[in-house]
Amino acid sequence: MKIAIVGYGNLGRGVEAALSAAPDMQAVGIFTRRDPASVQSVMGLPVYSMNDLDSMADDIDVVINCGGSATDLPTSTPALAEKFHVVDSFDTHAKILTHRAKVDAAARKSGKVAVISVGWDPGMFSLTRLYAGSVLPDGKSYTFWGTGVSQGHSDAIRRIEGVADARQYTVPIEAAMEKVKSGEMPTFAAADMHERVCYVAIKEGADAAEIEQKIVTMPDYFAPYKTTVHFVSLEELHREHGGLPHGGTVIHAGKAATGSAHTIEYKLNLESNPDFTGSILVAFARAAYRMGQKGETGCKTAFDIPPILLSPEKPEELYAHLL
Amino acid sequence: MKIAIVGYGNLGRGVEAALSAAPDMQAVGIFTRRDPASVQSVMGLPVYSMNDLDSMADDIDVVINCGGSATDLPTSTPALAEKFHVVDSFDTHAKILTHRAKVDAAARKSGKVAVISVGWDPGMFSLTRLYAGSVLPDGKSYTFWGTGVSQGHSDAIRRIEGVADARQYTVPIEAAMEKVKSGEMPTFAAADMHERVCYVAIKEGADAAEIEQKIVTMPDYFAPYKTTVHFVSLEELHREHGGLPHGGTVIHAGKAATGSAHTIEYKLNLESNPDFTGSILVAFARAAYRMGQKGETGCKTAFDIPPILLSPEKPEELYAHLL
Repeated sequence: MKIAIVGYGNLGRGVEAALSAAPDMQAVGIFTRRDPASVQSVMGLPVYSMNDLDSMADDIDVVINCGGSATDLPTSTPALAEKFHVVDSFDTHAKILTHRAKVDAAARKSGKVAVISVGWDPGMFSLTRLYAGSVLPDGKSYTFWGTGVSQGHSDAIRRIEGVADARQYTVPIEAAMEKVKSGEMPTFAAADMHERVCYVAIKEGADAAEIEQKIVTMPDYFAPYKTTVHFVSLEELHREHGGLPHGGTVIHAGKAATGSAHTIEYKLNLESNPDFTGSILVAFARAAYRMGQKGETGCKTAFDIPPILLSPEKPEELYAHLL
Repeated sequence: MKIAIVGYGNLGRGVEAALSAAPDMQAVGIFTRRDPASVQSVMGLPVYSMNDLDSMADDIDVVINCGGSATDLPTSTPALAEKFHVVDSFDTHAKILTHRAKVDAAARKSGKVAVISVGWDPGMFSLTRLYAGSVLPDGKSYTFWGTGVSQGHSDAIRRIEGVADARQYTVPIEAAMEKVKSGEMPTFAAADMHERVCYVAIKEGADAAEIEQKIVTMPDYFAPYKTTVHFVSLEELHREHGGLPHGGTVIHAGKAATGSAHTIEYKLNLESNPDFTGSILVAFARAAYRMGQKGETGCKTAFDIPPILLSPEKPEELYAHLL
């Protein structure tokens, strides 16, 4: 399978690494909207302009779209689905139905397969919620994120005047997780489940107290949560908080009709969020290709895909050794 | 969907309870090889002889086969697949390929769908191993069982002369789990991962020391493991150890090609093993029916089934709220 990487930020680099480890896949190259000469591939892949993508269609089986969910994927994935099997990690939960409808229309028209919203949430966490809810419908799924870096919250801090750089960790509240694991099925406000810990480097002359106040009172992002702000030097910020770890836990607590109680827990501990998400995109690119080979078309999510299509191993091997 | 329950032990009762909670399914009845008059349904379902099953075929969409893996399912599931969509929980890992081949031949001939080996291991644990191994192929899955009652090991103790009744708990070794969670990817002997704790009630006049010796030296079952034997009264055994709790944890530790380390952990904590397994069988019976409606035939495992087919909810609801 010949795979094209569209977009080359953290996620694109994660996809590039995952492709290098896939025995059955070959990375055709990186396609960028920037000047290709300004983009250096970590693994030495050729870098092309997005304008060259269509003319190379014969050399590409699947495009992995590594754009961002806010402004890029809503238009770029439907556009790519007009010509290619495509996979994205669209993660704006509230807009998934709209995205799905647009992508589905494009992919059905072109006869291609477009897999959307595959990462770990949406993605692996969604699968856990679906399987658990199907098996224990009299139950409730709780999703805890972290401890990990939230890019959106970090960016929100960076936009405050006087801030040189910042990193925000989303931290799940242990006591809330324990309550769910005990089978209690509590009702939580957002602030009962997570707290926010910020590391902020300020510019010379900026007022730390004022910046802290602006952070902790920021609506939606911080105001509802217990928020702790640590001021550190830029050097310390980059040294101690330069990684992008993340993860989280889905816990489904439910009861059988006899009254017996059960909990299902799925936990991710990720040293690098983009590396892991990139690995997921690559596995689903394999599935997209295989579904395309079988003549399927349209938009698919993780829910619609037989899991065996994700694996590079032969089915007989999987039945014999993983089942 | 009209569902028949074949076999009525602990698992059959678990299926009966799960069906009562499924909004889209109706239990037709229980089919038994015993005298139907001797079988009392917990929920008041009609009880029929297995001889009546074929004549009621028009009233049955899917058969859930609740027999045992050792001697029953290897013949009964292929036989049922000749006439019905069927689901079983065949769990002899070493014989799954053989079972699959026999069931597949029968189901293809009849044009039915036969779902095998769906429970939690094989089943939900297998799915975790498959998804995790597909996303992080440079990694290793570890499966820890328990704390929970192993019926096979309990039966092995009961067969010792002088034993009135017994219950064996399989207990995962915490230190081994921690080692795996740390990302070390160790190599374990069986005894490094689990220990065995036995509660035994002996008959009057039986020699406790001799029985303990027979337990701890029993090949395969106990000899390789750290085994602890507690002698208790029959009354205490039934009062304190009358349930069938179980569970376990799959941990996959892996690395991305960049070297970043990741762990995926899936943990079940089950108050009743047969209730939970019964709930899984019911969800996969729904999938079997739906695949049958689409014209699919042959043997399927959890690996082959799009997860969305397990849920009673409408796809749009699932995309909007669970994804």
